[in-house]
Amino acid sequence: MTDREGDWSAPSADVLARIREVRRAGREAVVATVVAVEGSAYRRPGAKMVVDREGGGFGHITAGCLESEVAGLASDVLAAGEPRIERYDLMDDEGDVWGLGVGCNGIIDVLVEPVDERYDPLVSAVEADEPIASLTVLDGDLPLGTRAYYRDGEVEGSVPGWFADGIEGLAARVLEDGGSESVEVAGEAGEATVFVDAVRPDPRLLVVGSGHDVGPVVDLAERNGFHTIVVGFRGGVDLESRFPEASEHVSTSPARIGDDVAPGGYAVVMTHNFVDDRLAVGELLGQLPYVGLMGPPERFEEMRDAFEEEGRQLTEGELESLYTPVGLDLGAGSPYGIATSIVSEILAVHNGREPAHLAEREGPIHDRREAELPGE
Amino acid sequence: MTDREGDWSAPSADVLARIREVRRAGREAVVATVVAVEGSAYRRPGAKMVVDREGGGFGHITAGCLESEVAGLASDVLAAGEPRIERYDLMDDEGDVWGLGVGCNGIIDVLVEPVDERYDPLVSAVEADEPIASLTVLDGDLPLGTRAYYRDGEVEGSVPGWFADGIEGLAARVLEDGGSESVEVAGEAGEATVFVDAVRPDPRLLVVGSGHDVGPVVDLAERNGFHTIVVGFRGGVDLESRFPEASEHVSTSPARIGDDVAPGGYAVVMTHNFVDDRLAVGELLGQLPYVGLMGPPERFEEMRDAFEEEGRQLTEGELESLYTPVGLDLGAGSPYGIATSIVSEILAVHNGREPAHLAEREGPIHDRREAELPGE
Repeated sequence: MTDREGDWSAPSADVLARIREVRRAGREAVVATVVAVEGSAYRRPGAKMVVDREGGGFGHITAGCLESEVAGLASDVLAAGEPRIERYDLMDDEGDVWGLGVGCNGIIDVLVEPVDERYDPLVSAVEADEPIASLTVLDGDLPLGTRAYYRDGEVEGSVPGWFADGIEGLAARVLEDGGSESVEVAGEAGEATVFVDAVRPDPRLLVVGSGHDVGPVVDLAERNGFHTIVVGFRGGVDLESRFPEASEHVSTSPARIGDDVAPGGYAVVMTHNFVDDRLAVGELLGQLPYVGLMGPPERFEEMRDAFEEEGRQLTEGELESLYTPVGLDLGAGSPYGIATSIVSEILAVHNGREPAHLAEREGPIHDRREAELPGE
Repeated sequence: MTDREGDWSAPSADVLARIREVRRAGREAVVATVVAVEGSAYRRPGAKMVVDREGGGFGHITAGCLESEVAGLASDVLAAGEPRIERYDLMDDEGDVWGLGVGCNGIIDVLVEPVDERYDPLVSAVEADEPIASLTVLDGDLPLGTRAYYRDGEVEGSVPGWFADGIEGLAARVLEDGGSESVEVAGEAGEATVFVDAVRPDPRLLVVGSGHDVGPVVDLAERNGFHTIVVGFRGGVDLESRFPEASEHVSTSPARIGDDVAPGGYAVVMTHNFVDDRLAVGELLGQLPYVGLMGPPERFEEMRDAFEEEGRQLTEGELESLYTPVGLDLGAGSPYGIATSIVSEILAVHNGREPAHLAEREGPIHDRREAELPGE
């Protein structure tokens, strides 16, 4: 991408792909990562953007107030060949401090690093589809930007023993949560503030079907960072040309869906053919934490009858992982409305949330207000 | 569109725009409308597609099982110059009846009509952004396809008195609900089965802001049939080139947002600038049934303090229409995740739904099962 504007809204996975591309091409670029945030900020720690030498940006770390500022640091950091950390204090945004009309309200620490060999273990893990956490020193008894990795249960990198021993448990936890945060490591021989950044493979979403309604589901899921795999059961459909946004396309038969498709992740079954749906559900249920089935409740009841005729009793765990009718109740009947309903449901399940209004989760606004005036 | 494949996933508003385009250009085409459904079918009554003489389709009426069949009728209907109704019985889809791999399971009645002067009142109402219901005879004492309209509280068209009197109340109700259904009209002098199809202007969504996070909201809202209006407060941003998918772009000042923007619909306030957000919320609250405000709850509490300093006490109705933090709790932090969370919330509010899992709304699956076996 050579456009100075860049592609600011690129999802995280694309930023990682960009880092990989930059390394392979041997181009000069920096990565700017939000490592700490105080107050209200649009992006959370872990948000990254890649800026090339000319200042073109990819990805973003705020909603627009800092990107140009940070992009301006790119050539300095590349010239120095060393990471630096910048603190942006945007607490007073009553006025238009940055002259950009898009204010932030908080203190944001941004680590800017050259994309060099320090990124190679990350790139290789992402290519191998393996989870990895990068460990970067922000402060303390080691130089700023000292980098190690936590992968496969081990700390890898040129770091002292007190660091590796101290960081191991913390890194394992952050990697499991899939988060990004600063932690304190302290051993007898030294201490440091370390930014732990989990990078996990994109969650997989199997979309079983090939009708007109599949495209919007694939499109919205991909934009939300899912690695979508369109599974078609009929040889006559050219899945790649019909669903170009999907990450993978698999033509198989229902009974073989377990063999051809790697386990893990989520599935939506939407072939609109009762037999194909039933066979797919039969194969996937029990294998995945979420299987969404399109159609009214009665349709699944018929399927259950069919399973029982074959002597299969569905377990409670299998029934709990089945979501039918698939999707959240948004009242939408159009292809994109249905896709929005399905993808929101999968996001909520993936992130362990109950899909209520955020406004209601915090409590009613007027009650909140009353709670603040106890003495009146 | 000349491609035989057509654009099957086009949203309804685009189908109406297509009808308008066909009329203006004097091209030959038919409209196929689902007028009745029994059993399980992917699209509901009112779903439409436009098919030109060569068979190229735009929009869709099922998930793929009937489009080609119906498209094949186009030239016959155009030659005859008269509407016809076709019944497709797809109740038995155990096998691959249609050879297309995308079955349906139900009985679907499809009305196929030439796009001629009968569509002109619809086109003019859509152009004027006014709600209108088309009234089409399916059966009874008037010829199949006899067309009238209900607009501005009146029945317009060459129809007998018993028809106009009998349909008026039903048409008003269906138009208010925004639905599509078949109704029975009976007077002393005649009776008929009439398909009443409400066509309402797309709901409006004001998106107040111009940062990187606005694009995904506009994009997903437009795909869901909203007429989005991006409102920017800073002259420096070229809204049309940054947000090309939006239906309208307005550069104005916060205090004038009420003047420059037509009332009605929904609004999301996301400038990331406290003062601009506060002024926008101040203008919009009380004007619209939904005002979503991005940011943590504390931010709105500060705004409320500011309102009170100006002597403005927010009413209960205003507080109920304010949704902050905006969006459903999906746990998503990326630009598209946030957009998905916001647009799902607006869809739910627009359609009068509580955004729970559809699977939970129907009741737990195993309980449903037990309820069916009372005698065991």
